[in-house]
Amino acid sequence: MDNEKQRVSGTDRDAEAAGNFYPLDRFNAFSDAVFAIVITLLVLDLPVPPSTEPVLPALAESWPDFLGYLISFAFIGGIWISHAGLTRYMRRGDIVSFRLNLVLLLFVSLLPFSTHLMVAHMLGADAPVAVAVYGANLFLEAALITALLHHAAHDRQLVVDDVDDASVSRAYRQRRTYLILIALAIIVAFIVPLAAVGIYIALAVAFLIQPLIGMWRKH
Amino acid sequence: MDNEKQRVSGTDRDAEAAGNFYPLDRFNAFSDAVFAIVITLLVLDLPVPPSTEPVLPALAESWPDFLGYLISFAFIGGIWISHAGLTRYMRRGDIVSFRLNLVLLLFVSLLPFSTHLMVAHMLGADAPVAVAVYGANLFLEAALITALLHHAAHDRQLVVDDVDDASVSRAYRQRRTYLILIALAIIVAFIVPLAAVGIYIALAVAFLIQPLIGMWRKH
Amino acid sequence: MDNEKQRVSGTDRDAEAAGNFYPLDRFNAFSDAVFAIVITLLVLDLPVPPSTEPVLPALAESWPDFLGYLISFAFIGGIWISHAGLTRYMRRGDIVSFRLNLVLLLFVSLLPFSTHLMVAHMLGADAPVAVAVYGANLFLEAALITALLHHAAHDRQLVVDDVDDASVSRAYRQRRTYLILIALAIIVAFIVPLAAVGIYIALAVAFLIQPLIGMWRKH
Amino acid sequence: MDNEKQRVSGTDRDAEAAGNFYPLDRFNAFSDAVFAIVITLLVLDLPVPPSTEPVLPALAESWPDFLGYLISFAFIGGIWISHAGLTRYMRRGDIVSFRLNLVLLLFVSLLPFSTHLMVAHMLGADAPVAVAVYGANLFLEAALITALLHHAAHDRQLVVDDVDDASVSRAYRQRRTYLILIALAIIVAFIVPLAAVGIYIALAVAFLIQPLIGMWRKH
Repeated sequence: MDNEKQRVSGTDRDAEAAGNFYPLDRFNAFSDAVFAIVITLLVLDLPVPPSTEPVLPALAESWPDFLGYLISFAFIGGIWISHAGLTRYMRRGDIVSFRLNLVLLLFVSLLPFSTHLMVAHMLGADAPVAVAVYGANLFLEAALITALLHHAAHDRQLVVDDVDDASVSRAYRQRRTYLILIALAIIVAFIVPLAAVGIYIALAVAFLIQPLIGMWRKH
Repeated sequence: MDNEKQRVSGTDRDAEAAGNFYPLDRFNAFSDAVFAIVITLLVLDLPVPPSTEPVLPALAESWPDFLGYLISFAFIGGIWISHAGLTRYMRRGDIVSFRLNLVLLLFVSLLPFSTHLMVAHMLGADAPVAVAVYGANLFLEAALITALLHHAAHDRQLVVDDVDDASVSRAYRQRRTYLILIALAIIVAFIVPLAAVGIYIALAVAFLIQPLIGMWRKH
Repeated sequence: MDNEKQRVSGTDRDAEAAGNFYPLDRFNAFSDAVFAIVITLLVLDLPVPPSTEPVLPALAESWPDFLGYLISFAFIGGIWISHAGLTRYMRRGDIVSFRLNLVLLLFVSLLPFSTHLMVAHMLGADAPVAVAVYGANLFLEAALITALLHHAAHDRQLVVDDVDDASVSRAYRQRRTYLILIALAIIVAFIVPLAAVGIYIALAVAFLIQPLIGMWRKH
Repeated sequence: MDNEKQRVSGTDRDAEAAGNFYPLDRFNAFSDAVFAIVITLLVLDLPVPPSTEPVLPALAESWPDFLGYLISFAFIGGIWISHAGLTRYMRRGDIVSFRLNLVLLLFVSLLPFSTHLMVAHMLGADAPVAVAVYGANLFLEAALITALLHHAAHDRQLVVDDVDDASVSRAYRQRRTYLILIALAIIVAFIVPLAAVGIYIALAVAFLIQPLIGMWRKH
């Protein structure tokens, strides 16, 4: 906060210019809190079997809820890591990045709703729509992260000094691959809804399994 | 936190004086968390269509809930940006700013309730009162931000050194315009309630669309 | 975080000693988040009148809920400010302060439950118990803040260098006065429950009105 | 954030290398928020006696809920302190530590569900399974903290300079003891479920009582 201010007032002496920037620490703190709440709200949807029913069969019967919990935890966690990966190259925000971030968080905070919707309809007659709505939510969120990357990469006043173009290009490529995969899942949702759910599971499992592989390779 | 302390104890040597100031980092962290929770609680009110009903007609039928979600997300997000815009000029807090901030957060945390109330009664016989209550909540919250600005601007010990009077005057003008618009919406609510909702939508859409225009103008 | 570590490793060279200290930034961040959640959960208990009922009479009828909301918002906010006022004199934590803080947060996070209990029974046959339980919750929370103050004040390694004994004595006196007032309210609860509620209201209103008086005196 | 970046870019000059690291401040802020939400959600499960029932008998009847609240508050608080104790030795994160942390938080955020499950079935026919599921949740969470410790301890680029091997060995020993105790409780759950609950209570009470003993020994 303080360093931020010193830097801002040091680089752009006149207060008018400094007034165009917003503190990155609040950008991060607010985003971290929203991500944390959204990822934790998911657990409220897990049904506890009533005391008169046997535990394991009741848990097994509500497998779609646990599946939705796992998939959405992995996606929201993944979006959060992408967000942290993006902001580590930023040194301050401006009004546009703050508002783009809010629109991003709007779609992030809709994910518990979309998850609930997909889980409730996944095996029903309206599965295509419900599974596609979930994909659309993921797509819009990913598009906003890309817009935020685009905005920061084009305004050198927002990024740290030593970002090289190769890092930016690599980030763009990763975002593009992810957007294409989600777009494919949405198309698949209208043909074979459960196959689209399969793509979501594959992406989520890949994400949750990777650290263990990462540890094994390293140590 | 630490820099804060050094500065406080550096400027005002005697501990008695230092005791009059409160750390800005906790002011911000607590406020960010409250804003994040309030903005995220809204999603709990979105009704998921039961698995026996077709998805799209059910979602279309609950359009007031989605409208309320969008409007309140935009307003709470906007208040948060105003708050971050104000505190970037502050370097520490005092007991008055901490308590004014609490009263502000009291009205912020009432917004999910007011939203729910407006959405439930918007098309009913008591629409004028429900829509006006929502406006009154926005007005009180905006008045408290203005009071916080007023308090900080009048105590040079609370603000960073290089704030110029032009920035402060501009902030006052923006706050006044916003307060007048909300006051107008409250009056309109008693005559044509849905027109007041229209004003809320216009303000919210303007807020959410602006970053995209901002990006387009810049790049 | 970083400054914290530098200071710790600078003062106590051997890692064994450094291992006895815990970072104050996480102490504060976790506490701020818990306070923010607890203060915001209260709004979930406010009943929205159904769309078929007139708004104002329905709101008027649920006045105890709004009263409980206001009182608890003021108390939780007040405890948070006390907490921030205490930690501004600390420069690091230890395992005892971290655990005392957890027990404090245990009682803070019980307040929405105690509030709900008091509000539901305030006008019923069991009002004395319900109103006294609320007071007991406030008392235990206040006792834990005092214990935290006691612990920090007796371990010079935890506090910043320039704390004088007068500040510490003044903090003790304030804590003692508050504890006595709450103890009195608990006793009153068993005789005239609504009078104890009156003491809670008086303390809460005093707390929420004070900043406005503070502003008026200053400017 | 800023110091973090300066250090990263100072040590590893090329941006490619810096791109492998993730900021510890967001790691901590996100984790703190998740811990805070999970520990606070527990209070939503405490049943408020309806206004027509006497307070104390109703509260006494729902003792399993209060017991679950206390046990889980103590465990989640204890995990949070372990987490803070681990990260104070870290100076930055990488993609593996960020993802391991997410898997850890996945199990932490399941604890309110497991608590609810154990409390609902503790006195029923399916107590062994319900009590063992709670233990399994604690075990998996503890295993992930150990994995995080293992990963950080084996990558010197992630830890602060002055960590000695004795501290790391002591941390490992503590983790191992805790894992063995939880594994024992899971085995006991299948023989005498309430004895396993007794082990949970003993660990929780020990944790909550310890600070008071710590204070008494010190002052």
